[in-house]
Amino acid sequence: MKFRALAIVVLVLVSCASARADDALPSWNDGPAKQGILAFVARVTKADGPDYVKPEERIAVFDNDGTLWTEWPLYTQAVFALDRVKELAPKHPEWRKRQPFKAALSGDVKTLAESGAKGLNEIVGATHAGETPEEFQAQVSQWLATAEHPKFKAHYDRLVYQPMLELLAYLRANGFKTFIVSGGGLEFMRAFAERVYGVPPEQIVGSSIVTKYEVRDGKPALKREAKVAFIDDKAGKPVGINQFIGRRPIAAFGNSDGDFQMLEWTTAGAGPRFGLIVHHDDAAREAAYDRGSPVGRLERGLDEAGKRGWALVSMKNDWKTVFPPQR
Amino acid sequence: MKFRALAIVVLVLVSCASARADDALPSWNDGPAKQGILAFVARVTKADGPDYVKPEERIAVFDNDGTLWTEWPLYTQAVFALDRVKELAPKHPEWRKRQPFKAALSGDVKTLAESGAKGLNEIVGATHAGETPEEFQAQVSQWLATAEHPKFKAHYDRLVYQPMLELLAYLRANGFKTFIVSGGGLEFMRAFAERVYGVPPEQIVGSSIVTKYEVRDGKPALKREAKVAFIDDKAGKPVGINQFIGRRPIAAFGNSDGDFQMLEWTTAGAGPRFGLIVHHDDAAREAAYDRGSPVGRLERGLDEAGKRGWALVSMKNDWKTVFPPQR
Repeated sequence: MKFRALAIVVLVLVSCASARADDALPSWNDGPAKQGILAFVARVTKADGPDYVKPEERIAVFDNDGTLWTEWPLYTQAVFALDRVKELAPKHPEWRKRQPFKAALSGDVKTLAESGAKGLNEIVGATHAGETPEEFQAQVSQWLATAEHPKFKAHYDRLVYQPMLELLAYLRANGFKTFIVSGGGLEFMRAFAERVYGVPPEQIVGSSIVTKYEVRDGKPALKREAKVAFIDDKAGKPVGINQFIGRRPIAAFGNSDGDFQMLEWTTAGAGPRFGLIVHHDDAAREAAYDRGSPVGRLERGLDEAGKRGWALVSMKNDWKTVFPPQR
Repeated sequence: MKFRALAIVVLVLVSCASARADDALPSWNDGPAKQGILAFVARVTKADGPDYVKPEERIAVFDNDGTLWTEWPLYTQAVFALDRVKELAPKHPEWRKRQPFKAALSGDVKTLAESGAKGLNEIVGATHAGETPEEFQAQVSQWLATAEHPKFKAHYDRLVYQPMLELLAYLRANGFKTFIVSGGGLEFMRAFAERVYGVPPEQIVGSSIVTKYEVRDGKPALKREAKVAFIDDKAGKPVGINQFIGRRPIAAFGNSDGDFQMLEWTTAGAGPRFGLIVHHDDAAREAAYDRGSPVGRLERGLDEAGKRGWALVSMKNDWKTVFPPQR
């Protein structure tokens, strides 16, 4: 009898270990969100099933800020821009008296936000233009290697969501092509997306500024100009998806109302579709915000996720961990 | 001795057959162009060689009109637009008296060309806007299935270049990601590029018109508007490459001066680079044109290919066949 009990224990341990090894989403608690993801992927990959989707049509789109990495208390690219303003300020003494730079230099985010599109254009022009895309990406990389998040005391590119990294890898392992579709800057994201998310530069859709081609002294170069070309947010997301991808995705992942139209467009297509919203309800491990928040405002998505059949992920309850182990 | 001679003959025959089976570019005559392609691919794929390029950086860009399919005597998309004007004319009696429509209806290509950007915008607005991208692509597909080239008496999507189809497949078999970068319309090309070239919609860079997202009666849709958004030609090509691909290609293939900057940008990068221009010098099998031609004008490329190290392909001498066997 003793031997038999031991055998059962061993069997149970082995089967647990095997279940864990098979679990492609180990940082997700077993709940409706995780089950929904697994069931959807099983449906579209079952070769003789009624909902089979050919690999080339397995397009999954992910928002970035608040969906793949933290956007709280301020969008990371905005933190970068403010740091750049401070860095460049000694060369621009006039900024100390001129908005929106004065607000940027004093960290007055409220006045900055009130400066609207015009203010944004001025800040973008001063901090994101004038260089080649390669030079700009090098600046971003250098900033990411040094800047530290005020609360989490970690580099921003370590403040990505471990459960979402697992989801990206799981979808790719199942023949999906994963794209980022973000309101953030195209070239800003290209500085880290391949290294951090495994998403190559040609699979990133984002906001962009006008870029010009010029040949100086026989050497050709691209130059970033101080003019916004495209804002990849809200109704701009389906437009960006169509422009860059040219196929309606079958799965979309977001967190704010800026992603609403992307989820709407994705899930309104024929056949099996999947929409998911990450709800930031985890004040202890990250932050809790939705309605009325200045970053990642989520109102319509919260009201309509249920009736539209979109999974609503509770960071607090659905995620075992939020960030990867910090180095 | 007889037996030995027979053995040698058999050996020679077997080795010839094997050489032929190994030839990934059977429609290319053995000359500097073919040798240049083979040598370049061997260099960048040799894992322990000094010029090895990682697969994710093996980006190859192809112009479409005149490089992958015929553009003579008139760009295929222009033929489509003129056919659409004729089809829509009964609903627009005013067109019979108004330029550029009057010229389009009478086939007066010269007057049409003289109507410039304004005329082009009007024709594009009348023939390329108002629908969803899916509806527009369905129109293009239907047109391709019925329209016939005036000289070659074949559907336009059969007038692709067999040697270039082999080249696309050969590069992909060697880990390259192949993109189309064309002055032609993004959605026009998406109607056939995957089926004909094996290039998926997300690997096409092209000219585009403004597209808007709208929800009508709860049903979301994209709508094509009568406004040109981006012209992917000349200096626009490196800009489009940067916007969509975000990596400088290592190989570029074109045929006209509209491709000059794309080849210049590609081959000015560090490390091994390859540029190739298809020269239309084959009046017997297709057409002979370069300097001063209204389609696919090639002047600067012809003058500078040599000193820039770009391969200049003679359709007449370098290609065994031009088009695939017609059905």
